[in-house]
Amino acid sequence: MQRKILLNENEMPHHWYNIVSDMENKPLPPLHPGTKQPAGPADLAPLFPMELIMQEVSGERYIEIPDEVRDIYKIWRPTPLYRAIGLEKMLGTDCKIYYKYEGTSPSGSHKPNTAVAQAYYNKQEGVKKIATETGAGQWGTALSFACAQFGIECDVYMVKVSYEQKPYRKIMMNNFGANVYASPSTRTNAGRAILEKDPQSTGSLGIAISEAVEIAASDPDTKYALGSVLNHVLLHQTIIGQECEKQLEYTGDFPDIVIAPLGGGSNFAGIAFPFLKHKLTNGNKVRCIAVEPASCPKLTRGKFMYDFGDTAGYTPLLPMYTLGHNFSPAAIHAGGLRYHGASVLCSQLLKDGLIEAVALQQLECFEAGVKFSKAEGIIPAPEATHAIAQVMHEVEKAKEEGVSKTILFNLCGHGFVDMQAYADYFDGKLVDHVLSDEDLTTALAEVDALQPA
Amino acid sequence: MQRKILLNENEMPHHWYNIVSDMENKPLPPLHPGTKQPAGPADLAPLFPMELIMQEVSGERYIEIPDEVRDIYKIWRPTPLYRAIGLEKMLGTDCKIYYKYEGTSPSGSHKPNTAVAQAYYNKQEGVKKIATETGAGQWGTALSFACAQFGIECDVYMVKVSYEQKPYRKIMMNNFGANVYASPSTRTNAGRAILEKDPQSTGSLGIAISEAVEIAASDPDTKYALGSVLNHVLLHQTIIGQECEKQLEYTGDFPDIVIAPLGGGSNFAGIAFPFLKHKLTNGNKVRCIAVEPASCPKLTRGKFMYDFGDTAGYTPLLPMYTLGHNFSPAAIHAGGLRYHGASVLCSQLLKDGLIEAVALQQLECFEAGVKFSKAEGIIPAPEATHAIAQVMHEVEKAKEEGVSKTILFNLCGHGFVDMQAYADYFDGKLVDHVLSDEDLTTALAEVDALQPA
Repeated sequence: MQRKILLNENEMPHHWYNIVSDMENKPLPPLHPGTKQPAGPADLAPLFPMELIMQEVSGERYIEIPDEVRDIYKIWRPTPLYRAIGLEKMLGTDCKIYYKYEGTSPSGSHKPNTAVAQAYYNKQEGVKKIATETGAGQWGTALSFACAQFGIECDVYMVKVSYEQKPYRKIMMNNFGANVYASPSTRTNAGRAILEKDPQSTGSLGIAISEAVEIAASDPDTKYALGSVLNHVLLHQTIIGQECEKQLEYTGDFPDIVIAPLGGGSNFAGIAFPFLKHKLTNGNKVRCIAVEPASCPKLTRGKFMYDFGDTAGYTPLLPMYTLGHNFSPAAIHAGGLRYHGASVLCSQLLKDGLIEAVALQQLECFEAGVKFSKAEGIIPAPEATHAIAQVMHEVEKAKEEGVSKTILFNLCGHGFVDMQAYADYFDGKLVDHVLSDEDLTTALAEVDALQPA
Repeated sequence: MQRKILLNENEMPHHWYNIVSDMENKPLPPLHPGTKQPAGPADLAPLFPMELIMQEVSGERYIEIPDEVRDIYKIWRPTPLYRAIGLEKMLGTDCKIYYKYEGTSPSGSHKPNTAVAQAYYNKQEGVKKIATETGAGQWGTALSFACAQFGIECDVYMVKVSYEQKPYRKIMMNNFGANVYASPSTRTNAGRAILEKDPQSTGSLGIAISEAVEIAASDPDTKYALGSVLNHVLLHQTIIGQECEKQLEYTGDFPDIVIAPLGGGSNFAGIAFPFLKHKLTNGNKVRCIAVEPASCPKLTRGKFMYDFGDTAGYTPLLPMYTLGHNFSPAAIHAGGLRYHGASVLCSQLLKDGLIEAVALQQLECFEAGVKFSKAEGIIPAPEATHAIAQVMHEVEKAKEEGVSKTILFNLCGHGFVDMQAYADYFDGKLVDHVLSDEDLTTALAEVDALQPA
């Protein structure tokens, strides 16, 4: 039986899919944090090139992928769609399980899909340097690679605790020619202010965002880039699901269930939106399930309200499911899922009952990841194990109901650079984290004050 | 322009290519170390399943790849052939550069090509457990994966210094279900003897081989497996070059030059032998260049003579280019190239002037690897950087001669698990190593006594 369904480079989609065009309830506008009035393109102009801002607010159904972007995508795209023959056998299921494997990219995850696009539009508008933040390092690596391709300088502000604990991610970024700074750094007012208060600060994603934003806002040749959450980032990721759709045409299948982990939302949106299109436009019953860690449960336990995208409160207010911008999730190894809010698009779709969400504990996810390694020969990134664990739940449910389902999930990255997580798992050092109701209430309380009248 | 030439699973070769059938000078036989008489299949029977022993001595031109092996190959094969568009542009060359990328495999290198085949034949003959050694961990990971696919237990004796310095490779093997022991261990007579003499011993590949061989020889349900050097291992790797040949048919090209790193020889043989076939059978002028590290220069400075395959002297004597089985190469990061001898087949071909060899220093190789990362978006394993550096030399030479060549090389693995090597390179901690004539003479002196009358 065929394991991989491949596409040739000339079968790569020519457009990204913009789900906004098909949403009955359009997403609410972002608000300026001062005036609480809708924030417009001009508010974002110091940070992003205009073409990306136009994509951010676009209502067009399809946006053309520039040839230059497609050419660089070809380094690893189209990515393979796998029929999970080994996993089906291991689980003894009648379900058909497919997974899209995004781990073949330069950084080992789906992140370069948007990094290349963002670098391209910056290059087009003459930008010389892009500043960004990175936590565990996936996004920083992806943007470093993309900037190397276009000859743009790249400054990455990497959360200091990761900078020190995950030196290999830093080295990967250096390989691609990027400058990597431990954040808080002495290079920005934001960084210096933090260090003055606490010279031992190990940093946070919020602080690193503030540093990168400050650099971009203060230098006309420098822009800022974000690796998830925003509409244009989700848009770029839809190439994943569109490729899947084409690949499944070759097998004659259409998924009953689409599953992906959700951190900011771009991974989930990437694979799910092109299938959701059928639900929004022709009543197809596909279930799209976002899987979040139980320690950072914005979708299942957070509140839909306006909140900041960053900890420091520099960004516009976004209407989203949130745990509060000061929420500090437990230090789980799935670093890409430790974000307090969900993207505006995913939040609106969940609010409208068009997608589902579940929260899983990390021990169960690692157990699923180890099983998957043995069955399929690919060691998944900790983020990706969340999707795998949920696939196992759906398989179990199908067995109980005596039905056979076609399940598609996003294997968004490999675990080659995450082996410490597995080491900790094998050594029994990992525990499950439950967020208490009190902590949740506290985290959300301060968000109340931010709501518009 | 097309970057990747892909094959579908049904285009995967159905046979391995056995170069012995086309060699005018057949390789000399291995000798029993005691009698110095040719060693026959019976001598190897305690260690290997009979089917692999038959492949080891086969003169057949093609050996069929079992369907079960092809089915598991499909997890990552056929692998992509890349046209190095980014690198060509960076080098400003008219040469066409192609590379075969073996880094998409479960362990991230070419090693699973033989691991899967070896595990399969062991399974067929009822073997319950395979014992092996591993240095840096690539081979151990590959065999662990293969054993997981066939439900065979896998014991890996990992050189203690690597076990301690490279815990992530150990964890990868654990992920695939293998037992990993630091060698020297207390589990074998060989290990205990070493530890008695030197409780602080950090081990060596030779000691680890001795431990794995002892386990296999003393347990009828356990066999031994080797990841390079032997004829059957090289045979299994020829799927690489055969795929390349088919992929280049699609572009209408045939290489003028084929380049690969050489440690034991399986990487080089894998890509080069199917092209050498044309040189051996129809006078094609293809140049096949093996690249070795200057610190371990068996091909360029070693002697062609009978020598042991392991340090302890347990294996048959093999006719090969060697630096002496007690030669201890400098601790370069390209761990897969730190072997004292070259496989019998590669050695005979070099002796007969059918292939070429060059030795390169590691700093030049890392520099080439970093350039390649920026140009092509793939961070190469340290072993693979040797091929890249030689490609750059050939491009330079072509430029000087005012000609355009078609160059193919084997990008045998990615560097995701080798970032410490790049960190040391960036930190200026790496130096070039030159082997002195005195050290070489000393290392080779003891081999003289092993020659048959």
